Amino acid sequence: MPKNTQRRLYRIVLRFAMLAALFDAIAPALLAQSDPLPSWNDGAAKNSILDFVKRITTAGGPDFVPVEERIATFDNDGTLWTEQPMYTQLAFILARVKQLAPQHPEWKTTQPFQGVLQGDVKAVASTGETGLIKLLAATSTGMTTAEFDKIAANWLTSARHPKFQRPYPECIYQPMVELLVYLRANGFKTYIVSGGGVDFMRPFTEKAYGIPPEQVIGSTIKTKFELRDGQPVLLRLAEIDSIDDGPGKPVNINKIIGRRPIAAFGNSDGDLQMLQWTAAGPGARLMLIVHHDDADREYAYDRTSHFGKLDKAWDEAVAKHWTVVSMKSDWKTIFPAAPASN
Amino acid sequence: MPKNTQRRLYRIVLRFAMLAALFDAIAPALLAQSDPLPSWNDGAAKNSILDFVKRITTAGGPDFVPVEERIATFDNDGTLWTEQPMYTQLAFILARVKQLAPQHPEWKTTQPFQGVLQGDVKAVASTGETGLIKLLAATSTGMTTAEFDKIAANWLTSARHPKFQRPYPECIYQPMVELLVYLRANGFKTYIVSGGGVDFMRPFTEKAYGIPPEQVIGSTIKTKFELRDGQPVLLRLAEIDSIDDGPGKPVNINKIIGRRPIAAFGNSDGDLQMLQWTAAGPGARLMLIVHHDDADREYAYDRTSHFGKLDKAWDEAVAKHWTVVSMKSDWKTIFPAAPASN
Repeated sequence: MPKNTQRRLYRIVLRFAMLAALFDAIAPALLAQSDPLPSWNDGAAKNSILDFVKRITTAGGPDFVPVEERIATFDNDGTLWTEQPMYTQLAFILARVKQLAPQHPEWKTTQPFQGVLQGDVKAVASTGETGLIKLLAATSTGMTTAEFDKIAANWLTSARHPKFQRPYPECIYQPMVELLVYLRANGFKTYIVSGGGVDFMRPFTEKAYGIPPEQVIGSTIKTKFELRDGQPVLLRLAEIDSIDDGPGKPVNINKIIGRRPIAAFGNSDGDLQMLQWTAAGPGARLMLIVHHDDADREYAYDRTSHFGKLDKAWDEAVAKHWTVVSMKSDWKTIFPAAPASN
Repeated sequence: MPKNTQRRLYRIVLRFAMLAALFDAIAPALLAQSDPLPSWNDGAAKNSILDFVKRITTAGGPDFVPVEERIATFDNDGTLWTEQPMYTQLAFILARVKQLAPQHPEWKTTQPFQGVLQGDVKAVASTGETGLIKLLAATSTGMTTAEFDKIAANWLTSARHPKFQRPYPECIYQPMVELLVYLRANGFKTYIVSGGGVDFMRPFTEKAYGIPPEQVIGSTIKTKFELRDGQPVLLRLAEIDSIDDGPGKPVNINKIIGRRPIAAFGNSDGDLQMLQWTAAGPGARLMLIVHHDDADREYAYDRTSHFGKLDKAWDEAVAKHWTVVSMKSDWKTIFPAAPASN
């Protein structure tokens, strides 16, 4: 490159860099004036979040945590999106049964399929875990991982939630989305740690929450590597690999992340061990539970709910002064106003 | 904040930002003149790396890959550090048997422990996989994950490699460390995907390779969540959870990362399926095999080696024109000159 051109290029690059620097210098001042959690009402819950983030990001302070250790783990069902009237993945499985039924005439007289097709919830429920695994196997295994990705992604964009009449990936909690953004702006790596299937979540988590596939941890089934006409595929087997719920959450956090979170967010007893594991580390910690007490805008349920039962974790949260969020009084809005994922 | 102070602060921040911008503007010019892979001799292997990175980072080019899709997976044993005269983790296990022997007088007359204590490799080998699992169970399970972390970290800093007489975390390949740094400088997320135990690697991978715990994938044993006097621990069970070798590598890549790598690095048949899985994606791909042909500076082995056998993967690399690195002729140096991890 001629010296002149090089110098000119250098001046242009420098000018752009200075403009960028100017913006960077102004941005924090602008940001400081705006509320990072606009959908949260002022109160104890919001304060506990702001206070925690301030403490762990204050350089030289007693609670400072280096950026690489800022791990936050979020349950998904009931914590980031709605889990009523049933877990979204269960709604997907039931829809798949109905869709596949014409190819399986025997389902008309075999439980738990018969119950699903006839809308007989009791009959389905009475088949217990065995029945659920049969439904999972029949609807979500036997294909390659690439094929399942497409099936799940298609359903997630086309199906509508029965109460809110919008796609499920829009039945996410706006205040929690703001919280995710706020934590990431403060150096956090945000993870989902959910009982849901990892391959059912990954098609929508990046768009809905800004969480990339490699930061989604969930329940898994076994897969098998095969060469088909020389092309490698991963075949989904009808065999459970890992249930990422209850004690399975800290187990998988340790196995996959290899660091203990400093903040954890849940809403049910299935999150208790993740919250305990997070609380047991040294230094400042944030344990937060979302309480569904808003029957008008979403649902109200806790100690006796079939999905998202909040009983033991509730008692422990009260006893240990963890943050409990009332959806009714702490959240200005529940869902994003405009479609979040079209 | 008083307006004056605010303005002064603003000016100070701006000045720093401009200095930073100046540095940013100069740095690329400086970097462009320096070789990002100084320990690599010029040749086909080095060129294939540089060419691949240029293609996938050229904005608007036909092979451009967005930053979030730049996933690179590295085998560890024999690809990033030495695996002879035996896998380092096996050396750790044998050392643990000797250390724990006084508490187990029965080991003097029980295989495979007897063979280990008497240096009878044949006797140990004849116990096969069952014997290996017994050794693993006796030395690496029954304690909490925190306790094992300490045991592994201590051994890794204190033990010395028999040939090179330096700690094992210094028997890493300098050219591969440069490659990791170079890929990360070009937006890659670098992962380890190794047959070794994930908990044996994590204590040293960040310091040695700049790879954080959450980007280390390896074989795992099952762990169990327990409350001990109200404090949660994860207990290491004598039960295999996942063998991250051969077909287990793409299975775990899909399960844990959820994206297909665009570049993969290995050295043995245990890496074949990871390389095939990487090669099968669309667009530009880099598949690379490290060939151990340097008996003087390290070791020379391939088709018949007990550790790191390179046979089928070698044939496929040749047939499919993957990059094959000759340690003897492609690498100027093997190990870091100065201690890398003290």
